[in-house]
This record gives sequence, structure tokens and C-alpha cells, in this order.
Amino acid sequence: MNVSNSDVYTAPIRALPPLIHTQLEEYCALRGREAERMDPRMLQAHSILTDFVLQGGKRMRPLFAWIGYLGAINAQPEQIAHSSDAIIRSIAALEFIQACALIHDDIIDGSDTRRGNPTVHRRYECIHSDGGFLGDAAEFGRSLGILIGDLALVYADDMVLDSGLDAAALQRIREPWRAMRHEVIGGQILDVSIEAAGVEGTEAPEKVNRYKTAAYTIERPLHLGGALAGADPEIIAAYRSYGTHLGIAFQLRDEILGVFGDPQITGKPAGDDLREGKRTVLVARALERLDATAPSHAATLRAGLGQVNAEHDIAELARLIQDSGAVEDVEARIRELKDTALAAISVVPSVADLLRDMAERATARRM
Amino acid sequence: MNVSNSDVYTAPIRALPPLIHTQLEEYCALRGREAERMDPRMLQAHSILTDFVLQGGKRMRPLFAWIGYLGAINAQPEQIAHSSDAIIRSIAALEFIQACALIHDDIIDGSDTRRGNPTVHRRYECIHSDGGFLGDAAEFGRSLGILIGDLALVYADDMVLDSGLDAAALQRIREPWRAMRHEVIGGQILDVSIEAAGVEGTEAPEKVNRYKTAAYTIERPLHLGGALAGADPEIIAAYRSYGTHLGIAFQLRDEILGVFGDPQITGKPAGDDLREGKRTVLVARALERLDATAPSHAATLRAGLGQVNAEHDIAELARLIQDSGAVEDVEARIRELKDTALAAISVVPSVADLLRDMAERATARRM
Repeated sequence: MNVSNSDVYTAPIRALPPLIHTQLEEYCALRGREAERMDPRMLQAHSILTDFVLQGGKRMRPLFAWIGYLGAINAQPEQIAHSSDAIIRSIAALEFIQACALIHDDIIDGSDTRRGNPTVHRRYECIHSDGGFLGDAAEFGRSLGILIGDLALVYADDMVLDSGLDAAALQRIREPWRAMRHEVIGGQILDVSIEAAGVEGTEAPEKVNRYKTAAYTIERPLHLGGALAGADPEIIAAYRSYGTHLGIAFQLRDEILGVFGDPQITGKPAGDDLREGKRTVLVARALERLDATAPSHAATLRAGLGQVNAEHDIAELARLIQDSGAVEDVEARIRELKDTALAAISVVPSVADLLRDMAERATARRM
Repeated sequence: MNVSNSDVYTAPIRALPPLIHTQLEEYCALRGREAERMDPRMLQAHSILTDFVLQGGKRMRPLFAWIGYLGAINAQPEQIAHSSDAIIRSIAALEFIQACALIHDDIIDGSDTRRGNPTVHRRYECIHSDGGFLGDAAEFGRSLGILIGDLALVYADDMVLDSGLDAAALQRIREPWRAMRHEVIGGQILDVSIEAAGVEGTEAPEKVNRYKTAAYTIERPLHLGGALAGADPEIIAAYRSYGTHLGIAFQLRDEILGVFGDPQITGKPAGDDLREGKRTVLVARALERLDATAPSHAATLRAGLGQVNAEHDIAELARLIQDSGAVEDVEARIRELKDTALAAISVVPSVADLLRDMAERATARRM
């Protein structure tokens, strides 16, 4: 999601990340002292994870968790003082889940860079090469990447459990915390599986969007925040509905941008999803439409997915998708999902404007 | 460790595994219903993890945790009724940590089989080949193996937190639970690192033995069991001393067997550690001795580690290690470690005989 100058949106997203950063820094320092006592190589591993987490992103998941918390206690987003250190620590822990997900994803996708830096497994590949180590550098990088991701996952659970939350709050967040981790791993298993199996139809990629993005990025963080505050079931249900629908809509926007997005804005090469052969709802819908109306075009699209590389071949596939009418279908679905999401949020008046603004931005055309 | 017919030893290790198995089965069934609701591919992933965990091993870590618990409440090992379902569930969760460690280790080591079955990543490789999937089968297998390991790690934390232990008990086990996970991942990072870097000297492999084996397999499980029972610091200290020293001794015995063990008994090819170039205390000690007394033999050993494959080359390296006197050094260290371990256990009289018996078995010569 883009950051703009709108006050309603920027006030909390400006206020929260420094607080998250401070808690992550403190937690990393604490664990770092233990790693140092163990061994210099353990400290190095810890430092690589620390770099990754502290450089990291927009803190989108802690942000949604925090909004979920504030909405449930009916506090305005500006009232950041309502959030204790324990609350901030427990939502900052989401960044370690994200670190594990990204570090392991980067191995799975064979990615070289992340946020402009070498990925963790590539960093270890360089350590191997620079040190003149024995064996295969890529294998070494992969092995250490797997282990650093594991460490991140362990830190995530520990940071929540040692956050200072009382036993009742820890009990309340069990459900969203447990579900979120299962859903993101499940979504990723599904994603890798359907891409390899070349599964068609919109059902499977919708599920990937639901579990890997919507549940993990919006629904469960809001649920977590609500649970932290002891929100009643009505609010939790509203958060889950908003989060699921908006999260899927956001991912559908991402799919359109993955084919038609301006590389200057998306930061990814044009048509990257077509090059990778990603099984998206957009592509599945285009195939369904072309099968019915223009089978030879369907065959061209099917054959080209994951096989194309040249710019004009990618442009041709993009044109087939455009001409199929699938983009209009997906745009309509985005509108519908956004409307359903927004219908849910009247029960949390203090954050309703903010959630509305975030929904607009998450689903806006950016091309 | 071998299982024998001695009553003191077999009574608890016969009684516990079925209880552990039942709790694991129930937990897997619960999670399986959720996975089924998500997607058939998610259920397949869950089932592969379930197979792995339910087939699994000797339940050594739950066993030590259970002994730690019984010793702390001064109950005899036969008094298994003293253990509530919540206790059994929380120590059974150790098997999911072990599943993650083994599944990820098997990717790191490129292992084909585990417990006589294909490893998880190889199983997925077959699913890829059998299904005629797109892309590289080995990469697919590795990707799914990473994700199934992650799922196991998440199940481990969830199984403890949802075990039914009360808040006070959950708080008491924070320290051993946290330390154990850091130590096993740290030990593995160290192990992979020193093997690749060809690190010499006994300090680094002693640390690997301490963290990857001793802490993870004996020290922290005993500590966990003690903490479950609310044991006083004296008992925890005794468990930790016994566990660290015995665990390292056990691993040193394993190192000797890794070079000189009878394949019929160890279940591993003769001289497997030499073929893999494993950096063990035994090899490090042999190199230290040969550097001082027979530099040309040291050079032969150094050059052969991880390079040899033919039986007679492996036998030659084994002979160099034997002639160096390193085996006697390691045997002396095993005796010393075992004695230190045994000196600690008088504070837990109800399980002292059992711990003594386990120490004998863990360190006995088996060749």
C-alpha cells in the first residue's frame, strides 16, 4: 500500500513504526547477548536476522493489529499513549513471523534481493565464497537461510510470550495467533503446489489470496488487536469480515498490477507474474473466458505462462488477458469485496475513517 | 540409546511412548480437521507431517522431560498416573520440535531416507514426478519440506500453549522452552558453519555437541519437566548438570561409533562421519595429536576428510585416528563427563536409579 499525505492515514502510520522499531531493537539486543555468549557464528546469524528485521518494511501487520486494538477500546488513532509497551511488543512480534515467511519464500523463489539488499541465503552464499569455504556455496546459503528463518519463527513466539502481557490477554490472543501462522504457511503450501501442478480455475488462487495475504496481513492482525483488547465477538466478526474481503481485494489489485503495472510504480519488472507463471485469479479468469470465446488465444496464453521472457511476448500475453474481459471481472470483484469490507466497520467508530481510508488505498488503481 | 530388558529402564520407556503417541494422534486429528477445511493440498501436507511424527522414534526428549517431572515431585517412574493429560501433551510437543529439526536437517544434508522411509522433501519430489508437475522436482521437494518443517515448529508451540497447563505452569516453562529452541537452532547453525569453514580444534565441535545434542536432547527436556513440577533451583541445577555432561558424553560415544562402529549395530555405513567430513571432537583431537607427533599422518587425515569414499581409504583414516591416541582421550573424557553427570542426581532420589541406568546405556561401548 502506498503512503500518502492524507492526515487520517499518515498520523498512525507515522506514529507506530518508530515504536515498533524500538521494541524490535530492544528484543534483538536481548537475544543478541545470549547469542554472543554461545558463539561468534551464532551472533553473526542473529545479526543477519536483526538487520533483516530492523530494515524491514511498512510494519503493515503491526499497524492493523494496533488499529484493531484501538478500535476495540474505542480510542482515536492519535491516542497512541493508550498502547502499553506490552501491547506494542506483542504486535511487533508479527514482524518476526514476516521475517520467517520472507526469508523462506526467498529460498523457495530463488530470489536474489529483498528490499534492495541481498536476500539472507544470498548473503550467506557470499560469506561462503568470501571465506573460501568447503562445499557448495548455494547449498550453504540455502541451509543457513532455512535455519535463520526458523530462528525468526521462534523469536516471534518468544517475543509475544515474554511481552509482559498478562495471562488472560495471552489466552485471548491464542486463536488469532495460532490461526494466522497456520494460514500463512498453508497459503504458501497451496501457492507453491498449484503453481507446480498448473492448477486452473479461480477457486485455488482465491484460496491462496485468502490465506496467504488476506488472513495473514489484515484479518488476523486486526483479530489479534481486537483480542488483545478483549473485544466482544461482534467486533471480532467485523474485523474478520473487513480483513478477509479487503485482503483479497488488495491481492486482486496486486494481480492486475503484476501484469499491467508500471514498473516505475510497482518496483517490479512489467509482466513479472506472467514470466513466473504465477497462477492468479486474473489469469484463471482470462483462461476461462478465452476457452469459451477464443480457444486459440487460450492456448497461446496457456503455453506462454511461465515460459515467456521477451518483452513483446509478455506484452502479447497481457493483451490477450486484457481483451478477454477478465480485467473487468476482477475490477468488479474488487469493488464488491471493498464494499463488503466497508459494510462491516461501523461497529468500531473510532477507527472507521482510518479503515475506510486504508481500504481505498489498498484497492486503488495505481498504473 | 538402546533399549534393553533391564526393568528399571524399560518400565517407564515402555509406559510413556503409548501415552505420547495418543496425545500426538489427538492433536494431529484436531489440526487435520482445520487443514481439511482449508484445502485438500493443505490436508495432504498436514498428513505428511502427521505420518512423520506418528512413526517417530524413541520419544527420548519427552522421556527425559517426564523423568524430570517425576523426579521433581519425588514420584517413582512407575507412578505414571501422576502425569495429567496436560503434562503429557506439553512434553509430547517436543516431538514437533524434533520433526522440524529433522525435516529441515534432511534438506540441509540432502538425505534420502529417515527411519527407513523417504524423507519429507523426497516424498514431495515423488509427488512432483508422479503428478507430472511443472518445474524442477528437487526444488519443489525442498520448498515443501521447508514449509512442512515450519508447520511442525508452529504446531510445537501451539501444542504446549493449548495443552491445558495453567498460566503459572506455562510461565514456569518459558525459560527451558525458549532456551531449548534457540540452542538447537544455534547448534545446527554452528554445525553447518564449522563443517563448511573446515574449523579445527576441539572447542567448536564441543559447542555443537553441547547445544545441538546435550541441551536439546537431555538438559532442557529435564529442565522442562522440572519446571512443569515447579522444582526448586537446586533440582533444576542438578538436571542441567546431569543433562549437559551426559549429553556431551553421549555425543562423544556417537562420534567414536561414527568412525569405528559396527554398521550392523549403528545402522549407519562404517566410517560415515569420515566420508561426510564431519568436524567432530574425535577428529579434531586426532589432528592435534598427529600434528605434534606425525605431521605426514595429520596431512593424510586432513586431506581425506570429506573426500574419501572407498572402503580401504576410510579404513586408513580410521587407523590414523586410532593410532593417534585420540580415542583414548575421548574415552577418558566420556568417563569424566559421565561421573560429573552422576554426581548431580542424588537430589532426585525417586529417579536417580533410572538416570544412572540411562547414563550407563548412553555412554556404553557398542562395537
